[in-house]
Amino acid sequence: MNQSHAATDDPIGVAVVGAGYWGPNLVRNFQTSVEFRQHWLCDLDVRRAERVLGDYSTVRATDDLGTVLADEAVQAVAIATPADTHLTVAMAALRAGKHVLVEKPLAASAEQGRALVAEAERRGLSLMCDHTYCYTPAVLRIRDLLHNGELGELQYLDSVRINLGLVQRDIDVMWDLAPHDLSVLDFVLPPGVAPVAVAAHGADRIGAGRACVAYLTLHLNTGAIAHIHVNWLSPVKVRTMIIGGSKRTLLWDDLNPSQRLSIFDRGVDVAATEELGDEQRREALVSYRSGDMVAPALPEREALRTMVEEYARAIRTGTPALTDGRSGLRVLATLEAATRSLADRGRLVEITDWTTS
Amino acid sequence: MNQSHAATDDPIGVAVVGAGYWGPNLVRNFQTSVEFRQHWLCDLDVRRAERVLGDYSTVRATDDLGTVLADEAVQAVAIATPADTHLTVAMAALRAGKHVLVEKPLAASAEQGRALVAEAERRGLSLMCDHTYCYTPAVLRIRDLLHNGELGELQYLDSVRINLGLVQRDIDVMWDLAPHDLSVLDFVLPPGVAPVAVAAHGADRIGAGRACVAYLTLHLNTGAIAHIHVNWLSPVKVRTMIIGGSKRTLLWDDLNPSQRLSIFDRGVDVAATEELGDEQRREALVSYRSGDMVAPALPEREALRTMVEEYARAIRTGTPALTDGRSGLRVLATLEAATRSLADRGRLVEITDWTTS
Amino acid sequence: MNQSHAATDDPIGVAVVGAGYWGPNLVRNFQTSVEFRQHWLCDLDVRRAERVLGDYSTVRATDDLGTVLADEAVQAVAIATPADTHLTVAMAALRAGKHVLVEKPLAASAEQGRALVAEAERRGLSLMCDHTYCYTPAVLRIRDLLHNGELGELQYLDSVRINLGLVQRDIDVMWDLAPHDLSVLDFVLPPGVAPVAVAAHGADRIGAGRACVAYLTLHLNTGAIAHIHVNWLSPVKVRTMIIGGSKRTLLWDDLNPSQRLSIFDRGVDVAATEELGDEQRREALVSYRSGDMVAPALPEREALRTMVEEYARAIRTGTPALTDGRSGLRVLATLEAATRSLADRGRLVEITDWTTS
Amino acid sequence: MNQSHAATDDPIGVAVVGAGYWGPNLVRNFQTSVEFRQHWLCDLDVRRAERVLGDYSTVRATDDLGTVLADEAVQAVAIATPADTHLTVAMAALRAGKHVLVEKPLAASAEQGRALVAEAERRGLSLMCDHTYCYTPAVLRIRDLLHNGELGELQYLDSVRINLGLVQRDIDVMWDLAPHDLSVLDFVLPPGVAPVAVAAHGADRIGAGRACVAYLTLHLNTGAIAHIHVNWLSPVKVRTMIIGGSKRTLLWDDLNPSQRLSIFDRGVDVAATEELGDEQRREALVSYRSGDMVAPALPEREALRTMVEEYARAIRTGTPALTDGRSGLRVLATLEAATRSLADRGRLVEITDWTTS
Repeated sequence: MNQSHAATDDPIGVAVVGAGYWGPNLVRNFQTSVEFRQHWLCDLDVRRAERVLGDYSTVRATDDLGTVLADEAVQAVAIATPADTHLTVAMAALRAGKHVLVEKPLAASAEQGRALVAEAERRGLSLMCDHTYCYTPAVLRIRDLLHNGELGELQYLDSVRINLGLVQRDIDVMWDLAPHDLSVLDFVLPPGVAPVAVAAHGADRIGAGRACVAYLTLHLNTGAIAHIHVNWLSPVKVRTMIIGGSKRTLLWDDLNPSQRLSIFDRGVDVAATEELGDEQRREALVSYRSGDMVAPALPEREALRTMVEEYARAIRTGTPALTDGRSGLRVLATLEAATRSLADRGRLVEITDWTTS
Repeated sequence: MNQSHAATDDPIGVAVVGAGYWGPNLVRNFQTSVEFRQHWLCDLDVRRAERVLGDYSTVRATDDLGTVLADEAVQAVAIATPADTHLTVAMAALRAGKHVLVEKPLAASAEQGRALVAEAERRGLSLMCDHTYCYTPAVLRIRDLLHNGELGELQYLDSVRINLGLVQRDIDVMWDLAPHDLSVLDFVLPPGVAPVAVAAHGADRIGAGRACVAYLTLHLNTGAIAHIHVNWLSPVKVRTMIIGGSKRTLLWDDLNPSQRLSIFDRGVDVAATEELGDEQRREALVSYRSGDMVAPALPEREALRTMVEEYARAIRTGTPALTDGRSGLRVLATLEAATRSLADRGRLVEITDWTTS
Repeated sequence: MNQSHAATDDPIGVAVVGAGYWGPNLVRNFQTSVEFRQHWLCDLDVRRAERVLGDYSTVRATDDLGTVLADEAVQAVAIATPADTHLTVAMAALRAGKHVLVEKPLAASAEQGRALVAEAERRGLSLMCDHTYCYTPAVLRIRDLLHNGELGELQYLDSVRINLGLVQRDIDVMWDLAPHDLSVLDFVLPPGVAPVAVAAHGADRIGAGRACVAYLTLHLNTGAIAHIHVNWLSPVKVRTMIIGGSKRTLLWDDLNPSQRLSIFDRGVDVAATEELGDEQRREALVSYRSGDMVAPALPEREALRTMVEEYARAIRTGTPALTDGRSGLRVLATLEAATRSLADRGRLVEITDWTTS
Repeated sequence: MNQSHAATDDPIGVAVVGAGYWGPNLVRNFQTSVEFRQHWLCDLDVRRAERVLGDYSTVRATDDLGTVLADEAVQAVAIATPADTHLTVAMAALRAGKHVLVEKPLAASAEQGRALVAEAERRGLSLMCDHTYCYTPAVLRIRDLLHNGELGELQYLDSVRINLGLVQRDIDVMWDLAPHDLSVLDFVLPPGVAPVAVAAHGADRIGAGRACVAYLTLHLNTGAIAHIHVNWLSPVKVRTMIIGGSKRTLLWDDLNPSQRLSIFDRGVDVAATEELGDEQRREALVSYRSGDMVAPALPEREALRTMVEEYARAIRTGTPALTDGRSGLRVLATLEAATRSLADRGRLVEITDWTTS
């Protein structure tokens, strides 16, 4: 199936499913991409789809997914419906031979996610997860810095994503917001480094029936720690990630457009003392670096535009997207472990590796 | 003993013990207070004490604590020595009939702290803990706002205290920095509200032999949650506390002198639905407030100056200081529980109430 | 002509002229407004117009203004072409009986602007200037605060608008950026208060042939002062306006979305001493207020959407738009005086009142 | 006189005159310097001097300047009295053979300042102006960057120093605050670059009898422009200086302790086109650089401590201090020209070069 695209530069026919919060962004970005030709916007509420398209569009609105999937001009489907419908819609699309892009989270459970991954791989179709933040110029640069060793070895990662947010009816704050942080973590970690266990604490102080504030602590296989604070109740908006490396430390402040990344050549070193005993190591000399800070120039580019191009690349080459179904599955596995921890008073819970099972 | 001071306005004779990092601040503030007359600065390294006093001071330097405690002009002793010496020095001072002020933490363990509290109460002496942050204009105002109900009921508290800090030889980052957050928490919580259990995660990625990054999650007896992030390795300096109340939410940013407190009339409410079942509550209407933010004018006043005055007040009236030995003991109890949790992979550990035992 | 619209709720037929930097924003906002029906996008380079419309639009592109003006379905024209073409395009549109919206500045000179105002008034057509910033929620609030006296009497206004900006080929930084500040000033000043003279200094240090940095000082008829700093060369982006009133002072920081307006109840008062002589007044007691700061909640609303609605309102009611041609003319008069001052080493130049001549 | 010091490492005997706002800072810094031995604090109000010294100091207080100047142990005098007394006090000290340090401004007029400079030079005594900001690590670095060409040629300088400040009884805001900006400008400009004319606008809207808001525009002999905004009425505190160079642009934000200096490799270039005519140059290609930003690590060091050491160096070597009397005189000359401009509606006034007359 992919082969047909590799042989041609024709635009890839695409349909968007879901005209709610995120759908319009997909509609807009597919329309400005020369890689795609958009044919449909599908929503159970066809009036909503029509409103999103506006009075001047030649794209067709429909409430019938079957029509969309039967359309041979449609080679790819982008799904922005509620998470608990992802399995049904995406599975139908895959079985109709369409490439699939799914809004985060990949599915409502790891088991569902695994089914989608298996189906796509069996059929040789591209299954991609729209982990949008991964395609921001800032995160792409962070990935480079961690992969090529410029930050050194990861020591800790601290992510804060808090705001006065919409209290969701079906999911808690962890499932709503933490996929952003977890997908970025999955994206930037060097090969071989991964979280293996998670502890989660949360609070539902407004009586919403689910956690509105949550803290996740991830233990990595290297001994490093990653911590995520997500919060729907904060009147202060914060979106920062600190990544402490053995060589340099990085601050990503997504709300500071003039200085999104700051790379500090400051830190604490302990003299290499591996041959020493424990007592001796504690006495070993600690030294401090106090170097310059560099805020690298970043291109101004909409993340969704880059994501859409990566989707086209994956489809045309038949290779996995940078944020493929497996990455979406790893995020789901961590969320499920965190949910178990939350229910068990913050007990440290191991993260199942579904991708090898 | 206290009675003698109640009867007079004579300055209280004071001696400072410890001329390291914090001692000079005490020296300076006792010297500018009309309530005190400073007689001694005592340090095992008398040269260090002399350097702190400088070439122009009439205060005497000594390395002999016995001389200081034997001096009848000295009615109060302020201790700024390493934590593991607090028990010995403070106990000697109490036994010599002196009022005692101790730098945080009160002692190296809750058991030691309890011994000091008991000794001071038996002798009718003032035992005060120098929880300096509690005496900042910002924290005094926060205490008012929480005690008089202006923020409503506490929902969550999130404290971040991170910086490139001195890696201590004897204690980890929790024992070094979290006493600040825990003492503020103890200070501002309304009567009857208190943490009952704590989970702690940490990392020692630089091989310093103790945690350099730590996260504490405290569960309160009201169901609210408090979270503390302390970190010695961050090149970015952050000192913020968000206090989410049912009516308003407050941000304390200690590094923003022009706007240290911001009080937001923004938040999320759930319609009162106590008579409803669980399912129904989840469907209940969530409403959002989006009101103004007020940054109250705060007096400009050095916290240590206010602390020193509170010390004088406690001595002269024979009543407990706002941050008395018992508050120091509560902080120690939480730190000990956190240490146990840290050693047990973040298991939730109950906090012992030593003050009633 | 206006009457016909007052009698109906049919959408107003509109055409956009100019598909450069600003045109696409107008295209998008007219398309989402129920008040308008967009028929044309006209540009001398029809390919550029087509690119702006994209592959999915039913709006027609053309390079022939005559066709647009001859279209009876078109009742209003929005012009986003270079300033030196405004006179020709707008005059043609007015003479064709169309209402006209013009991007700032209204025209290339006050004389041209006056001709447009006269033509529109003679024909009873709406001539509106797209002073976009005036329609931001922040500026609408500032206008309220100054008009209803909550800030007291204006004492000074200080506006900074600096950034690494596109060096224009035809105009200097004053003509490029200061229309924003001058139109806001014109918009928020209470009735009867107006600038009467201006001094301007500038520098062309990069040899661009025109000022790239400029400072305008405006003297108001009340004795108050307004100052504008515009700069194309600053790598730091700043967009702030401080408005000092006799009661309160306001800061508008357009780059701080979480706190765009801050209203300070802080200031300096001089005791009322009008009966005293000069010497005595200088000795009179100065007192300082140090009250709270309030950051009012503002609606989140795109300024262009509000502007487009105001355009519809003006057309339908036959009354002047809030930023009508006369306001555009006042801005031009100030710019011309500033240009004369710049050429005469910063001499204070009186501002001609063209609207009464 | 200086020679005697060059021959010895004995501390320089010093007396401080003036125990008001600034005096205590001098007292504290001379006391911690090993270069000086402080003998006196002199103030017309001896009680004030005693209060500044406190209850524990061995430094003597006096209200008799004659006693101080007659004391042979006193080799240097530091003057922190009101500006209109500088001439009398400093002249008396010089005539008594003392080196003199004067708080800014050097004197109440350029003529007075010239008299002091002449007297000091005649007697071979060090006359230094306490331009404190020049000795901050940030300004010392800026001076290096401009002197060694790393910023390229100066294009513009923009300084903002606004705050809710004490309305002075004897001087306007220009004389109160602008000496800081003018002394920094004088300090960092490369040799041969200097302001030659100034225009000033101001407003006294609170009826204080003198300008409370002022704007100074300085024209430099290179064609560059420097602009200073000083304001006593602003509830917002801003202290920034932007220095635009042909290679890089620098931002100094004195209120951001974690990032005081930011050096931007961003800017606008015009292709070198010196052989072209005016018309051609205007069409020449403008190019934009969008490189990284670097915030250099700066030492943490109190400016006054460095200033005091420079005073000792100047005295011991007999060479001019970095901020000698002549630099103070240049600042006065600019202030006087600005005052004339302010009185003449902002007319551009040439700055007299007193140092060569």
